[in-house]
Formats: sequence, structure tokens, C-alpha cells
Amino acid sequence: MTKPLKVAVAGLGTVGAGVLKLLQQNSDQLAARCGREIVVTAVSARDRDRDRGVDLSGIEWFDDASAMASRADAGVVVELIGGSDGVAYDLVKESFRVGRHVVTANKALLAEHGGELAASAEGAGVALAYEAAVAGGIPIIKALREGLAANHIDSLYGILNGTSNYILTEMRESRRDFADVLADAQAAGYAEADPSFDVDGVDAAHKLAILTSLAFGTQTDFGAVLVEGIRNISLLDIDFAEELGYRIKLLAIARRTAHGIEQRVHPTMVHREAAIARVEGVTNAVLVDATPVNATVYQGPGAGEGPTASAVVADILDIASGRRLPTFGIPAGSLTPLNAADMDKHTGVYYVRLMVRDQPGVIADVSAALRDEDVSLESMLQRGRSPDEAVPVVLTTHATLEAAMKKALARISALGTVVEPPCMIRIEE
Amino acid sequence: MTKPLKVAVAGLGTVGAGVLKLLQQNSDQLAARCGREIVVTAVSARDRDRDRGVDLSGIEWFDDASAMASRADAGVVVELIGGSDGVAYDLVKESFRVGRHVVTANKALLAEHGGELAASAEGAGVALAYEAAVAGGIPIIKALREGLAANHIDSLYGILNGTSNYILTEMRESRRDFADVLADAQAAGYAEADPSFDVDGVDAAHKLAILTSLAFGTQTDFGAVLVEGIRNISLLDIDFAEELGYRIKLLAIARRTAHGIEQRVHPTMVHREAAIARVEGVTNAVLVDATPVNATVYQGPGAGEGPTASAVVADILDIASGRRLPTFGIPAGSLTPLNAADMDKHTGVYYVRLMVRDQPGVIADVSAALRDEDVSLESMLQRGRSPDEAVPVVLTTHATLEAAMKKALARISALGTVVEPPCMIRIEE
Repeated sequence: MTKPLKVAVAGLGTVGAGVLKLLQQNSDQLAARCGREIVVTAVSARDRDRDRGVDLSGIEWFDDASAMASRADAGVVVELIGGSDGVAYDLVKESFRVGRHVVTANKALLAEHGGELAASAEGAGVALAYEAAVAGGIPIIKALREGLAANHIDSLYGILNGTSNYILTEMRESRRDFADVLADAQAAGYAEADPSFDVDGVDAAHKLAILTSLAFGTQTDFGAVLVEGIRNISLLDIDFAEELGYRIKLLAIARRTAHGIEQRVHPTMVHREAAIARVEGVTNAVLVDATPVNATVYQGPGAGEGPTASAVVADILDIASGRRLPTFGIPAGSLTPLNAADMDKHTGVYYVRLMVRDQPGVIADVSAALRDEDVSLESMLQRGRSPDEAVPVVLTTHATLEAAMKKALARISALGTVVEPPCMIRIEE
Repeated sequence: MTKPLKVAVAGLGTVGAGVLKLLQQNSDQLAARCGREIVVTAVSARDRDRDRGVDLSGIEWFDDASAMASRADAGVVVELIGGSDGVAYDLVKESFRVGRHVVTANKALLAEHGGELAASAEGAGVALAYEAAVAGGIPIIKALREGLAANHIDSLYGILNGTSNYILTEMRESRRDFADVLADAQAAGYAEADPSFDVDGVDAAHKLAILTSLAFGTQTDFGAVLVEGIRNISLLDIDFAEELGYRIKLLAIARRTAHGIEQRVHPTMVHREAAIARVEGVTNAVLVDATPVNATVYQGPGAGEGPTASAVVADILDIASGRRLPTFGIPAGSLTPLNAADMDKHTGVYYVRLMVRDQPGVIADVSAALRDEDVSLESMLQRGRSPDEAVPVVLTTHATLEAAMKKALARISALGTVVEPPCMIRIEE
């Protein structure tokens, strides 16, 4: 048997403790799989005295993560601190400098510095592995980087943020509004005290930037992701979606188009019968459309101690077995800058909900605004009458240029009878 | 750049031609991924003159596949001949003898000789890769062997035969019986002239035997798989399933139980709202339940030129990149004999459809037979009256020992009023 693989773990929150437990509990099975023992030799965290339900005896403690990277007796550093910069970034760079492999669950770090870190890892001749950074326990990184490696990827989309999906599911099922469901999710620990990364789409956008790189051989370009969250989704929109045969999901979409690569995260109406519409609660799912394989789907738990630890340890096993891959599937120098598509050139179908004063002529004004910008109406619904008060008017369009849609919405917003900013949701057919 | 990887392909049917096309069309992308060119240097097939729509110039031709394995200038032999013995088996053994890696799509070969071939490959220090053998384009082998490698797998189940799933879907949607739909599927090329491997469950059982090995670290034991096909499923059963809230699928199931490992392929009633119930047509899907990751799902096209070629080339890329794995995830010598569970000890829920002569006392007789064998009835349905003619009676049970169910069915079959053998379908909750 080869000598043991020594692992240093930075960050002992839920996931870090889960990784240690899994490495300890399944040690025999893991050794059988990679032909050597995997031993945690060092850990680093903020609070040395906290009880994490895991045996730390015989493991060297470091208060400073970067010092651990330099000085620990370890071949692999596992980064579970989080954040795109600061301690996590320094730790990873220091690990490369001293020639240690890195396994991380840090999507922000990869999304913001993917190209640079891939090049550093390559220069140091070590691995940068990040299965846990996207879609938790689903081995989607491995699927894209290896399983589908023979394909030309056309597009991918998915539900990459469990918290948002949980909130949308709960809103629909329990008929409660966003703020109410969010408060409950926070109390139950499903949502963070500061929920903005989740509900504003940033977390999903980080993950999408990583998948885009893998799928298209481009440098991660988080800045090019269109990001819209779910704060403005009302129960009214959820009900109208149902009535129109749709369900609202926070989708992350990456697609090659004639104008470049689209990367977008936004609330999306999908057909109620579509497989993605049935992915509920905290579950994640990714659908990849590729040639010649066609559509494949990957679904599972997107977060949590067990799923994330499963992914982290899978990466450690790859390293222990000597399986090496370029960070994004091809050498860092071959990654091309992402040619981002201009969303104004996007053609899509749109749902728009207006709150209008219920008085004669409103619909005529709205229709004229749409006509003037060449937006072709597919349907219009007005439910309920309440003279001179605000009532919802919902419309859906035929395929329309996004630029035209925006101009039409600007015109509509300016109408005196439209009493709040329009709610626009993209429909994916 | 490392020197090219030379590949010899045996079998130039649809899949073989697809592999050659994919290697030629995506050659630059593939070289970027593995750091070297992949070149087909030799092929073998029966008919040299057939036009396969692929350029064979400069590729050495062998009439004899085993001779190709011995003599071709190649590091990898791709076996696409099929069959558990004969030419395919000889070719693979010969390839190992002369130290060549093998990539195969041959589920029968792996299911029947998995343990032996894994040991041969290991002895020769070469890879035996078979992503294409199970679930076509879905990278399920990689997911089980690497992506979920840190987990303890509890069970897995799936739809592994597209032809059967297509027939069941068509029967339900077009309200036609088995023979009728099969004949159409044969005419359209979705089913073989001899459909028995598909519709009798053998193909799914081969695939299941492979997944079981990977999941549980056991030697493949095809003989231990309970195999029942879909020939006896009638439109009547499909309708009753709908009425009871179920859908009938040919499921392949592997599960650890207190009595050993169950491997079974049989028509199964699943809740109509379950994700697996919505996998329709020729699509395959596999659901894996594991600790600590929980349930993950993999779905996609289970057969066809493109999906199968995608899987074959993914295996070639792993070899070209120097990524090595034991055939079933752990060394061949560590695979344990499969401790097969006795299905008589299986506890499950059952659907039974009887055709009975519509006369007084029948239900009482059936009920008595069930009571005498300790089978607890959950529901009983009799639709339509037709005195003295055969009418269907449908019953579902509470959780019941399979041995008891069999005995009860033997008693019921012996009743003079039961006019044809009972149709029993297992229900998975």
C-alpha cells in the first residue's frame, strides 16, 4: 500500500466537521477505493474550544489557516472557510505556493478568481478540486468535466440555490408571501440571517459561472452573469403562473447563442409539467444539453453537511488515487475569455404583471406602448374589477427582443394609471 | 504533448461508427482535454464493403477481432461486438494478455464475467472501462465509482431498459396492448426483431448486476437477479394502476437488506407523482440512495448512437489522461461474493389481478385464501358485472412476506372460479 495521504482542513463548521466524520467513519472503505489511508493531520478554525462532535485528538491545531497551509504535514488542504477573498483566497494561494493540492467548497472564490487559480494550480503542478462548490452532493462537476467530456455542450440550466427554491415552493404550497416564508426559513435554519446571497441570486450566479467555464472552456466571468433574485415575486405572480400553466423557479442558465454566451440567473416561468418544475424544496437539479449525448439530468441535495462532505471526500479520493485533471477540464492557458452575449439581443417570451388603476382606457394605453415597441401580445388577463383602485393586469408576449421589452416596460411604467413598477418574469418554453 | 493514444475498434455497427465519427469530429477538443491526440489505427468488423458514413482511410482493417487485439498498433481496444461469450469475450481476454486497455459497451459480458475480467485487467495492469454498458449516455458508472465513492450505498433503482419503458408508455398513452405496441416498435426500429432481451428483463438485469457490483463492492452475480419482464402486463393492469394512483414501470432494484442483497428486475407500480413515474419513453433514470449524500438522480438517453458514443469516448479520455480505477471501484480481490437475499424473505406490498367467473362466493373464497396465508388485504376492487363470465378482481395488500404471497396465489389459482393465472405486480412505496 502507498503511504497515507495527509489532509489539512481549514474551517470546522458543519461541513468541516462532516468531512472529518466521514473520513473517520468510512476510513476502511475509502482506503480500499484509493489504495492508501487518508489521514487528517491538521485543522484550523476560529474557536478551538467548541464541541463539534468529532474527535480532534492527534490532529495538529492551527489558529491561522495560511500558516497551516505552509507548515502542516499535509499533501492536501481542504478549504471550507468561504468568501471570495481574504482568508480563503490567501490560504489557497499559499497552498499552491508550497505545492499542496486544494479541495474547496467555495463557489465565490472559484467564480471570482477561477481563471487565475486554475493557472496557479497548474503552475504548481497540483489539483484544484471543487465538486462541493456546485449543487452539493450531485457530482455535476465530474459529469461535466469527465462524463460528458466528449461532447459539445449547447446549454445547461438548473436550480442551483436550494434556499430560493424552498421559499418559492413554500410560498406556492402554503400560500404565504415572500417575507413570511423567509422569516420562517431563517428561524428553521434553512436560510441565513443575511439571506441576500441566496434570495438575490448571487449564490446561484457564482455556481453558474463555474459551470459555464466547465461547459464552454471559458474563463469564469461572474461579472457577466445577469443576476435577478426572488424578492419581488409575489403570491399574485405565483397564482397567475399556475393559471397560465407555469411554475416559477429561480433558474440559472448558460447557453451558446449567435451573439455569444448567455449567463443568467432570474426567476423563470417553466411549464408546470416540465421535469424542472417538479424539483421542489431544497433539491438542486442541473439539465445539460449536449451533442451527441442529448439531454442528461442530475438531481439531488444541493447543500447540507452530508451531501457537501460526500463531494469534498470524492475530490480527496481522486487526489489520493492520483487522478489529475485541469481545473476546468482543459489547460488554464486554453481557457478563452468569455464572449458574453448582450442581453438586449436576447429573444424570449415574457410575463408582465402590472398594477393599474381600474379605469377605462388603461388596457388601450398599455397595448399601444407594446405595439409602439414591436412587442407582440400573446395573452392578456384582467381579474376582478375594483373601479379606481389598483388591480393586476397580466400579459404574456410572443418571442420578443429583450431590448424592445425593456423599452415597452419603460413606456408602460411612465403611464399615470400604472401605480407600481411592472413585474417582468422571463418564460422558458 | 504526449504521443498520441492509438485506438483499435472492434465492431462497426451504429455505435462503432458513432465512436469513429465523434473521435474524428471533436479531435481538437478531445486532444485539449487529455493533452494528446486520440487516433483510431485499426478496426475490425464483419463486412468490409459496407458504407458506414465514416472515413476508414489509413486505418488498418482486421477481419478477425482477436487478431486485431494481438497485432494492431494500439494501446486501447474498444469492444462493440456484444454478447457475453464468443468473439467479444475472446477479444477482451486477448487484449488483456497483450497488455491493452479495454473499453466496452457490453453489459452481458460484464454481468456474466465481471469478477473474472476485473481480475484479468488488474493482473495485466490495464483498465477495463464500461460507462456505455449501463444507461447509455448517463455517466452513472462514473457517478457510482467516483462521484459517490465516499458513501455507503443503501439502495439504487432505475429504469434501465428504454425499449420496455417505451412500450409501457405507449400502451398507456395510446391504449393499445403489448403485442400491438411491440410490433410497431419493431417496425420503427425501437425494438429488436428478437425482443426478448429487452421485454423479458434480461438487458435490465445485466445492467443491474453491474451497478450492484459497483454499489456494494460485490462480484457481479447475474444469476442471482430476479428477472420478470413486461409481456404479461395488460392494458387492464395499466388502467387499474392509474385508478389506484400508480404507474407501471419495469424497475431494476438493488438493495441491502437484513437478509442479504436483493437484485430484482420486474414490473413495479410506483406512485404516479413520483419522479420515476414521470420518466417516459426511451429515457433511462437511476436513483441512488446513499449515506451521507442521500438521494441523487441521474437521467438521460439510455441508448442510441450519440449517447453510447459519448460514453465510450469518455472512457477513452480517462485512459488517455492516465486516470486509472479498479474495474468496480475497489481491487478485484476485495470484491466479495454477493450474499443474495432470498426473495421469499422479501417484505413488500402487492397488486394482484384475478380473472374470476362472476358468481356468488368468489370473493369470499379469495379472501379466505389470503387470510389463511396471513396476507392482509388493503383494498379490493371489482369493476363491472357479467354473470358467469370472467371479470377482473383487483386487490392490493398491506406489507406481506413474499413467501406468504406466493402461497396465497397458489391457493387462489387452484380455485375453480379463477379462470386464468393471477397477475401479480409488486408495489414500491
